[in-house]
Amino acid sequence: MARILITSGPTRQYIDPVRYLTNASSGRMGCSLAESAVAAGHEVVVVSGPVMVDYPSEATVLWVTTTEEMLDVARQEFATCDGLIGVAAPCDYRPQFVQGQKISKTGQPLVLELIETPDIVATLGAEKGSRWVVGFALETEDHRFRALVKLEKKSCDLMVLNGPEAMNSDDNQVEVLAKDGSVLASISGSKPEVANHIMQIVSQRLVQA
Amino acid sequence: MARILITSGPTRQYIDPVRYLTNASSGRMGCSLAESAVAAGHEVVVVSGPVMVDYPSEATVLWVTTTEEMLDVARQEFATCDGLIGVAAPCDYRPQFVQGQKISKTGQPLVLELIETPDIVATLGAEKGSRWVVGFALETEDHRFRALVKLEKKSCDLMVLNGPEAMNSDDNQVEVLAKDGSVLASISGSKPEVANHIMQIVSQRLVQA
Repeated sequence: MARILITSGPTRQYIDPVRYLTNASSGRMGCSLAESAVAAGHEVVVVSGPVMVDYPSEATVLWVTTTEEMLDVARQEFATCDGLIGVAAPCDYRPQFVQGQKISKTGQPLVLELIETPDIVATLGAEKGSRWVVGFALETEDHRFRALVKLEKKSCDLMVLNGPEAMNSDDNQVEVLAKDGSVLASISGSKPEVANHIMQIVSQRLVQA
Repeated sequence: MARILITSGPTRQYIDPVRYLTNASSGRMGCSLAESAVAAGHEVVVVSGPVMVDYPSEATVLWVTTTEEMLDVARQEFATCDGLIGVAAPCDYRPQFVQGQKISKTGQPLVLELIETPDIVATLGAEKGSRWVVGFALETEDHRFRALVKLEKKSCDLMVLNGPEAMNSDDNQVEVLAKDGSVLASISGSKPEVANHIMQIVSQRLVQA
């Protein structure tokens, strides 16, 4: 059995006190993975952005809003975990300057300079030591190639590849890729079914008995 | 009794197939207003952005994603309504160019040129004729002054002023402002309580017997 850290849901990057950048991640895949991991007897810590799903009561759930907060909390929790499943969709751009007051409309274009937020899976991957890391890649083109580049760059042991149609959907269709570029599984079905299959692969290949 | 159009919730403006600009509007104030209006015997049409609230089953609910869609649908419905309560928080900026594929991270800043979306309440206000329009203003500074400017600019009959702490909260604290600048009511309480009080004012001042 293992102690597994799961990042889940979107994050938000505010441009002023009202408006923010985000994505439609619902936390459902993270919730299903948490349920599968609990059912398999693992201890589960979820670090989640703002979503409406009910994570399993057996899991420890820590709520965050921004990518920086998700990184801080996940890094702290990763210290006592055996592995990470990074299924969150952290907002990966933030405005260089955040306005303290609501930006008023002037009729003129508003130029927003965005900079990249820290990459949570890559950061924890680089620090993982003997722990294992499973990443998720959401791609809209050159799917498998980009997912394998991310697997390498983020020091992952497995990379799960899906498309934007997975977001806020009940179903999912994924490929699980190994370090050598092989496709370990192509899975489609409801998110709980897909999560169960992914957890089986994680348990077999990564979790030490 | 009247046929009342209520716009509710946030809208989303996508910058690519995954990322979008939005705000934390939960649709709860719109839902409470719809409930109050139904309870007062009015016919209610809700045009709502993506939210998780359960609008009253007696209301007709039309779902939209973007501000442009909300304007199109609201304008169509307004034709057969007696008045509009514009409590939605439409995203008021959109990227000048929407990327067809997910923007890849390069390590470099990303400059986003945003332009204003059409103002739904102002557009319907300008076309209202004998119909009435109630606007909502969410301000973080110079609250009452800015709300009155919006009342005038958007051809509203009443303007309800609240702050960003109202967003995604169970409670609300508002001022109801009239055209002559007078404060008709300062209301605080749960969103259903605040909605009931606002609907009383709307019924008394705007709905024709």
